[in-house]
Amino acid sequence: MSPESMSPESMPPEPRSCRIIESTLREGEQFANAFFGTEQKIEIAKRLDAFGVDCMELTSPAASDGSRRDCERIAGLGLRAKILTHIRCHPDDARLAVETGAQGIDIVFGTSSLLREFSHGRSVDQIVERAAEVIELLRGHDLEIRFSSEDSFRSDPEDLFRIYQTVDRLGVHRVGIADTVGVASPRAVSQLVGRLRELVGCDIEFHGHNDTGCAIANALCAFDAGATHIDTSVLGIGERNGITSLGGLVAGLYVRDPDGIRERYDLPLLRGIENFVAELVGIDVPFNNVVTGFCAFTHKAGIHAKAMLNNPSTYEILDPADFGLERYINVAHKLTGWNALRHRAEQLNLELDERELREITRQLKKLADDKPLGLSDVDTLLRSHRSQEMTLS
Amino acid sequence: MSPESMSPESMPPEPRSCRIIESTLREGEQFANAFFGTEQKIEIAKRLDAFGVDCMELTSPAASDGSRRDCERIAGLGLRAKILTHIRCHPDDARLAVETGAQGIDIVFGTSSLLREFSHGRSVDQIVERAAEVIELLRGHDLEIRFSSEDSFRSDPEDLFRIYQTVDRLGVHRVGIADTVGVASPRAVSQLVGRLRELVGCDIEFHGHNDTGCAIANALCAFDAGATHIDTSVLGIGERNGITSLGGLVAGLYVRDPDGIRERYDLPLLRGIENFVAELVGIDVPFNNVVTGFCAFTHKAGIHAKAMLNNPSTYEILDPADFGLERYINVAHKLTGWNALRHRAEQLNLELDERELREITRQLKKLADDKPLGLSDVDTLLRSHRSQEMTLS
Repeated sequence: MSPESMSPESMPPEPRSCRIIESTLREGEQFANAFFGTEQKIEIAKRLDAFGVDCMELTSPAASDGSRRDCERIAGLGLRAKILTHIRCHPDDARLAVETGAQGIDIVFGTSSLLREFSHGRSVDQIVERAAEVIELLRGHDLEIRFSSEDSFRSDPEDLFRIYQTVDRLGVHRVGIADTVGVASPRAVSQLVGRLRELVGCDIEFHGHNDTGCAIANALCAFDAGATHIDTSVLGIGERNGITSLGGLVAGLYVRDPDGIRERYDLPLLRGIENFVAELVGIDVPFNNVVTGFCAFTHKAGIHAKAMLNNPSTYEILDPADFGLERYINVAHKLTGWNALRHRAEQLNLELDERELREITRQLKKLADDKPLGLSDVDTLLRSHRSQEMTLS
Repeated sequence: MSPESMSPESMPPEPRSCRIIESTLREGEQFANAFFGTEQKIEIAKRLDAFGVDCMELTSPAASDGSRRDCERIAGLGLRAKILTHIRCHPDDARLAVETGAQGIDIVFGTSSLLREFSHGRSVDQIVERAAEVIELLRGHDLEIRFSSEDSFRSDPEDLFRIYQTVDRLGVHRVGIADTVGVASPRAVSQLVGRLRELVGCDIEFHGHNDTGCAIANALCAFDAGATHIDTSVLGIGERNGITSLGGLVAGLYVRDPDGIRERYDLPLLRGIENFVAELVGIDVPFNNVVTGFCAFTHKAGIHAKAMLNNPSTYEILDPADFGLERYINVAHKLTGWNALRHRAEQLNLELDERELREITRQLKKLADDKPLGLSDVDTLLRSHRSQEMTLS
C-alpha cells in the first residue's frame, strides 16, 4: 500500500533463517540480580542448546578469572550452538578470548569513546586503526569475528557506515548495530539496518534494549530490514530493564511461519528455561510475558469466549499446544455471554435451552456485579436452575 | 536515508499532541484477575485524571446493571478527562450508553462477524447499514462518536477502508483500528494507519494487543503514521497478556520530547497508579516494566558505571527524577571497574590512588567470582586496604 511496501526490500525474509545469539550468559549477567555460578551457567547453556539457539554469547574472559574459566568450560562442552565471547576492542582482551577456545569473538566499541570522539573526525580513523589491529590478531585462528558499535542510534550514521564498511573489507563475518540505551523507534531501526544492508556484504547483528518497551518489535524490524542475527536473553534480562527476550523474538517469528519455527526450535522447552532463569535471578515471570505469562491464553469477554469456542484462531495467533501450554476460557464474570454458558452446560451434560441459558446469564451477571466468582459458582447456578426446571416439569 | 524518510509523512507528529484513551476500566476489566468494585473504579478514574489522560473508556452499560451504574457514577464525577463507553454496534446498547451521561461512545464491530462475513461482499453493506442506524441514533446527543473494526489486520483492507470512508462521511469523530489478536508487525501498523490517514478526514484511534510483545512499539508506529488517539491500560492489563501500557506509551513519547511530556502529564504519579492497580488485580509490577521496573535505572557493567558517573545521559534516555525515581549504580560484582570503585572511595572520603584502586578491583573481582557481594563488601575492602596503606606508611 505504501511506497515502502512496493520495494523489493519489503519482501520479508524467511523467519526460520533468523539466527539467534543468546546472550543470557553475557548481557544477562549484567542484570541487577544476576549471579551465575559455573554449574548454573552450564545448565543454562545446555537448556538453550536443546531449545535450538544458533549461538551463545558469554561474558568477556577479561572480566575476571572466573569468567575466563567458565568461558573455557562452556566452549569445551561440545554443544551444537556456536560459543561466542564478548570483548572490548583491545589486543589484550582478544588474546585472552582466543585462548578460551570460543568459536567466535564479538568485538564491541565503548559508547563513551564513540560519543566523545565522533565530535571530531580523526576518531573514526583511530577506531578503524584499533579495529584493524585486533582483527589482524584474530585472523588465522579460524574464528567468527563480529565488530559492533555501541549506542549506534546516537552516533553519526555516516561515521558509523565508514567504520562498518572498513571492517567489512577487513574481513569480519558480522557487523553489529546496538541500541544500547533503548532509544530507537521501530522506524529508526528499519532505516539504519536497511541502509547498512546496502553498504556491507557481511552478516548484520542487532542488539536492542527495552527502556521504552520496543526491544522485541525493534528486533523484528531489524530482521525484516536485513539483519541476519538477533541478540536475545531469557526473559530479556540484562542491564537496566533488559533486551529482546528469547520467547518474544521466537513468538514474533512463529506467527509468520508456525510450521517453520516449530521445526526449528523445541518450543515446549521455553517455559522451563524461563522458570529456571527466573528462579536463579530471583524474579517472577511477568504476568504479561509473551507466550508464558500466566494469562497469555486466558479468554474472558463474552464475545471472545463465544468465538474461541467456535474457532480458537479467531482470538489466538499462537497455538498454546505448540508451546506445551493450555488455553483457559473464563466464563465466571459479568462480561460473560449465554453462548459461553451453553458450552459449560454441555460439558456438565445439562440440557438447557436458550431461554433458560439467557436467564441464568442474567442471574450470573447480577452475582458477578457484587463479588468475584469461580467456575463452581457457574456450575452451581446451571445445576440449580436445571433442577428447578425438573421439579417444575 | 530510505525513500520513506524523505517523504513528508515521515515528519513525526508532536509527541504532546498524542491523545490517550485510557481503557483500564474497559479493556482492563477483561484482564483475567480483574474485578473492580465501584469505589475502586472511581479511585482509578481519579488517579488517571490527575495523571492527565485525555479520555477514559468504560465497560459497556449493556454488560451488567453494575456496569451501567458505574458508568453513570464516573460520568457524573466531573473529571477533566472525557468519559467514553464501549458498545457493540447495536441500537439497544446505544440507547443505554446515551442514558449513562458518557461524553463519547466507542462503537465496535465483533471480529467473528467481520471475519465470517467479509468472505462475501454484501456483508460490507450490512455493516454500513447497521452502523448508519446506530450513528443516526446517537447524533443530536452532542456525543463524540467512534466507530472501530475488530481484528483489523486480518480483514480485507479494501473492505475496511470502504467502511471507514462511509462512517467518516456519516460524521463519526473517530475511526478505530484494532490489532485485537496482537498479530500486527510495526511495519503493518505503519502501512495500514498511513493508508487510512489518506482516506478519512476524522481522527484515527489505534488499539493494539501484546501477544508478541509489540503493543508499545505498534502504538508509537500508529501515532507516527497518523493516528491521533492511542488506547492504553495501566501496566497494559487486558484480555490475554493485554495491550499497550500507559507507562510504556508515555515513556516512548517522553524520549522524543521530555519537556513537552513533563508539562503534559504528572509523571511522578505513574508509579502510584501502577502499584494501586497491580494490588487490585493481584499481580506484581513486571521486573522489566518500562520506567517503574525495579531495575529500570540500575547500572551494573563497569563500562556503563564509569560513563554514568561522568554523564548519566550516556546510558539513560529517561531521567528517573522526572518520574520521581532514583538511579542506582551497582559496583559490587565482577563486571565492575576501578573507575566505579574510585567514585565509591570518594563517597567514603578515602584517598586511594589508581594503583591502589586497580589492586582493590582485582581483589573484588576475585571475591565476586565466588559469591554475590553487597556494597558493604566493597566498602570493607576499600577501608581495609586504606588502613593497610596507613599502617605501612
